[in-house]
Amino acid sequence: MAFPGISLELPKWLQEQLAGDSSVYRTDEDKMELVVALSRRNVEEKTGGPFGAAVFDMDSHRLVAPGVNVVVEARCSAAHAEVVALSVAQKVVGSHDLGGPGESPKVLVSSTEPCAMCLGSVPWSGVRRLVCGATGDDAERIGMDEGAKPQNWVSTLEDRAIDVRLAVSRSEAAKVLEQYVASGGTIYNGRRE
Amino acid sequence: MAFPGISLELPKWLQEQLAGDSSVYRTDEDKMELVVALSRRNVEEKTGGPFGAAVFDMDSHRLVAPGVNVVVEARCSAAHAEVVALSVAQKVVGSHDLGGPGESPKVLVSSTEPCAMCLGSVPWSGVRRLVCGATGDDAERIGMDEGAKPQNWVSTLEDRAIDVRLAVSRSEAAKVLEQYVASGGTIYNGRRE
Repeated sequence: MAFPGISLELPKWLQEQLAGDSSVYRTDEDKMELVVALSRRNVEEKTGGPFGAAVFDMDSHRLVAPGVNVVVEARCSAAHAEVVALSVAQKVVGSHDLGGPGESPKVLVSSTEPCAMCLGSVPWSGVRRLVCGATGDDAERIGMDEGAKPQNWVSTLEDRAIDVRLAVSRSEAAKVLEQYVASGGTIYNGRRE
Repeated sequence: MAFPGISLELPKWLQEQLAGDSSVYRTDEDKMELVVALSRRNVEEKTGGPFGAAVFDMDSHRLVAPGVNVVVEARCSAAHAEVVALSVAQKVVGSHDLGGPGESPKVLVSSTEPCAMCLGSVPWSGVRRLVCGATGDDAERIGMDEGAKPQNWVSTLEDRAIDVRLAVSRSEAAKVLEQYVASGGTIYNGRRE
């Protein structure tokens, strides 16, 4: 029997909400408002963890691709919001490199600071900027595990010419994490024993 | 227009080589021999970078899922061999957690030590063991970028009860990296300026 391929669809509500979207998300705060709304709706629709992300064009300020955490639903531990948004954006652009020659620069906006895996994925994606909402501490406070990131993780990105801005609309973003726990959402983690 | 899904197929030669495989790969060296052969064939078939990986059942020593690097071909910067093998294995098993209740333990075998992204993905996957061939230094020597890993990366896995063994058949594995460069293979990287 052949091995299955990897396939992963965005939730139906997300397509319905954003397919064809041509809004201009001018500021970091505008972009974050959308991303936090995605994280919230992902909790309300029970389609995954309390995390949203999106890739935007830094020239036009339009959405290139959204993403939400669909780890449990897609049966794929790599399907964090950031990896989903980056991978969908790469399909949209038609290249593994979102910052290749002739490409306008892209920013990844994430409702929570990236875990170790997503952090590692950022330099490979070609984005030029990362904007985060809730902090890693906010995520760990609800029992989520951010993994083993270098202590100076922001400067590891800056060293690769990726600009970083943290804590944009942090309290709005962190509220969704609390909402997830209050609604009985699964805290799945790597095990420790 | 709807956003595309993420879809990614294993190369045809890999399906032809391994679909239905029921071999027993008893030792780490047996497992690594297969994985290095995959990395070599991925170079020869020009289907991607010089990296192979596979998930094996630690009880039966049978292959659960193979993976190779298909970043450029699949237009997906996350499609490193380890992420591909783990994601296909999760489709095979039907869960995001390869070490969930009732699951026999799984090992990830990789022809080269994981980059920062793949390292971060290991604890989320549920595997109980990681076996590596070529070292990160071997990869960086040919111009590949391993990303910003914690200096003590092995112990960050051991702290999560994931056993690690390095440098299994290292010289065989590293030879494929050299072969890739000699054959004019693309060195794609995150940019630094």
